Amino acid sequence: MLKPAIAAALTFATAGFAVADTDHSKLPPEIQARHGLMANYAINLGVLGDMAKGKTDYNAELAALASANLAAFASTDQSLLWPEGSDAMTADGSRALPKIWEDRADFDAKSDDLATAATALAAVAGTDLAGLQSAMGGVGGACGACHKVYREPK
Amino acid sequence: MLKPAIAAALTFATAGFAVADTDHSKLPPEIQARHGLMANYAINLGVLGDMAKGKTDYNAELAALASANLAAFASTDQSLLWPEGSDAMTADGSRALPKIWEDRADFDAKSDDLATAATALAAVAGTDLAGLQSAMGGVGGACGACHKVYREPK
Repeated sequence: MLKPAIAAALTFATAGFAVADTDHSKLPPEIQARHGLMANYAINLGVLGDMAKGKTDYNAELAALASANLAAFASTDQSLLWPEGSDAMTADGSRALPKIWEDRADFDAKSDDLATAATALAAVAGTDLAGLQSAMGGVGGACGACHKVYREPK
Repeated sequence: MLKPAIAAALTFATAGFAVADTDHSKLPPEIQARHGLMANYAINLGVLGDMAKGKTDYNAELAALASANLAAFASTDQSLLWPEGSDAMTADGSRALPKIWEDRADFDAKSDDLATAATALAAVAGTDLAGLQSAMGGVGGACGACHKVYREPK
């Protein structure tokens, strides 16, 4: 993560957005990018989850691909994505609670936890179904731990 | 990349979307995810480009962070993101030209070219400004080469 002084120097430019039917491409780039990160978590987790639950057949190549993707996405540096002023109370189009900025160290640690769990999953997901299933819980737990505290409920 | 048989087995579910003011979160997950990938390219490239052009001061830590991110994002496997039926003529909310599916090998090769250029940039971007500037052209060229052929003009 960036040193705080550097992070603070990256100013966040907000513009006025209509609350309803926000055109995603007009949201601030940081919000688009973090939504995009989550969208890539979701599509890879969807593939893995369906296999783990038996909704689709286990496929080692696909499991390896999706879990490697998840680990890569989860391991990127998110310093640029969470500038001050981009929370749900201040900016449109975001469910990021102000608590993120109040407890930033904990938020960052929870991001790291996801990277750790996703990396552990990637090490075993392509081996066999049992391997995949054994490590999915750690990932789901990491997603939930952060959302429970830092994401605005619908 | 996935074997074609596996890729074909991943069916793409389209639903009817209003063309105007498409709610991004209602777009198919594959389209959201690839837009999100590009959004993360953009935010990291923005930081690097501003430094390269002298709009912002060179900062080695930030340059290393952003270039490492770009390389990581560009190196993910995109097999899940480009299913048949998600092109600009068939699906809403996408500028992906049908040519992608006609010349898929070339499209995939161009994705690989970006990964290669981004990895080369990440190797030098954190060294000094000259290093950053020397490798930016390769990345810009890779972006343009793909967009020129495969992205619907506005």
